[in-house]
Amino acid sequence: MANPTDFSLPESISFLSRTPATLNTLLRGLPNAWVRCNEGKDTWSAFDIVGHLIVGERTDWMPRVRIILENGEARPFDPFDRFAQFKESQNKSLEQLLDDFTRLRRENLAALQTLKLQPEDLCRRGRHPALGAVTLSELLAAWVTHDLTHLHQLSRVMANRYREAVGPWSAYLGVLQCTGHSAP
Amino acid sequence: MANPTDFSLPESISFLSRTPATLNTLLRGLPNAWVRCNEGKDTWSAFDIVGHLIVGERTDWMPRVRIILENGEARPFDPFDRFAQFKESQNKSLEQLLDDFTRLRRENLAALQTLKLQPEDLCRRGRHPALGAVTLSELLAAWVTHDLTHLHQLSRVMANRYREAVGPWSAYLGVLQCTGHSAP
Repeated sequence: MANPTDFSLPESISFLSRTPATLNTLLRGLPNAWVRCNEGKDTWSAFDIVGHLIVGERTDWMPRVRIILENGEARPFDPFDRFAQFKESQNKSLEQLLDDFTRLRRENLAALQTLKLQPEDLCRRGRHPALGAVTLSELLAAWVTHDLTHLHQLSRVMANRYREAVGPWSAYLGVLQCTGHSAP
Repeated sequence: MANPTDFSLPESISFLSRTPATLNTLLRGLPNAWVRCNEGKDTWSAFDIVGHLIVGERTDWMPRVRIILENGEARPFDPFDRFAQFKESQNKSLEQLLDDFTRLRRENLAALQTLKLQPEDLCRRGRHPALGAVTLSELLAAWVTHDLTHLHQLSRVMANRYREAVGPWSAYLGVLQCTGHSAP
């Protein structure tokens, strides 16, 4: 059993490097009934979630790593727009989004490895505009856990499509009891 | 938007056929810190979850399809052992489990397609030992949603590893607010 407080940079990279291929395997070529279904008004589909992950690659994770290393707490991170994908994904196909996410994640992990972060770097601090002081290792752990949050959301969104179709089995299917834990 | 009551056999098969490759992409070669971590005593790791999916392929989904077609409600389904994987997975590697799941799912979907189910077949009824009367389409929808329940669980189990490491970001990471919805 791993100690949950025990952040590991190589194990985080090992996880982060798989997410594009995982989503590609799960979603590419899947009927739109799965890819475009959501949980109702103002909720996200698998298509929206992939778009959101792209925005994170472009504007959140590695830009914030660089702010910590270059400015420390002196310059707060730019706020992250959690709804940018609704504009940016317009007129794109899911296949384009999956390709964009794959490329951006690969570039970002290559850039992360180029930094050759040392254990003492992981304790360096930055300033989140709402959360206050955070460390570089907390940012990197949040990157991993953000992928997992959206894999968790994705499975719930897709399961919603068969909420009625499963009949009495709904009592046994935990994903159908989940009402979500973040907005959205 | 798909109508959630609108079960589709081809779309279900399209989803079910992807799960082994999705788990393979996500888990094969991943450090044990991710694959073997769980949420504490008597909870399941990714390794345990793959083992559980194998037991379902062997003893639950297609055997129950056949019972419905051959016996209808006259013969209740055999109860499903939700803990059989703890014995069956012993001395196996994750890679063996992923290979076994891939093979069994492929065989089961080939068998399902050989049945050439017609719309009227989907209304045929069987008897679940605890839930009572169920239809064939409910069984097949539950097969899909069971995969999604365990993808949902898997993302939560793996996120638990970084519950402390994310620091103040835990407030924003929905997967860390999920306490699970079924036992286990």
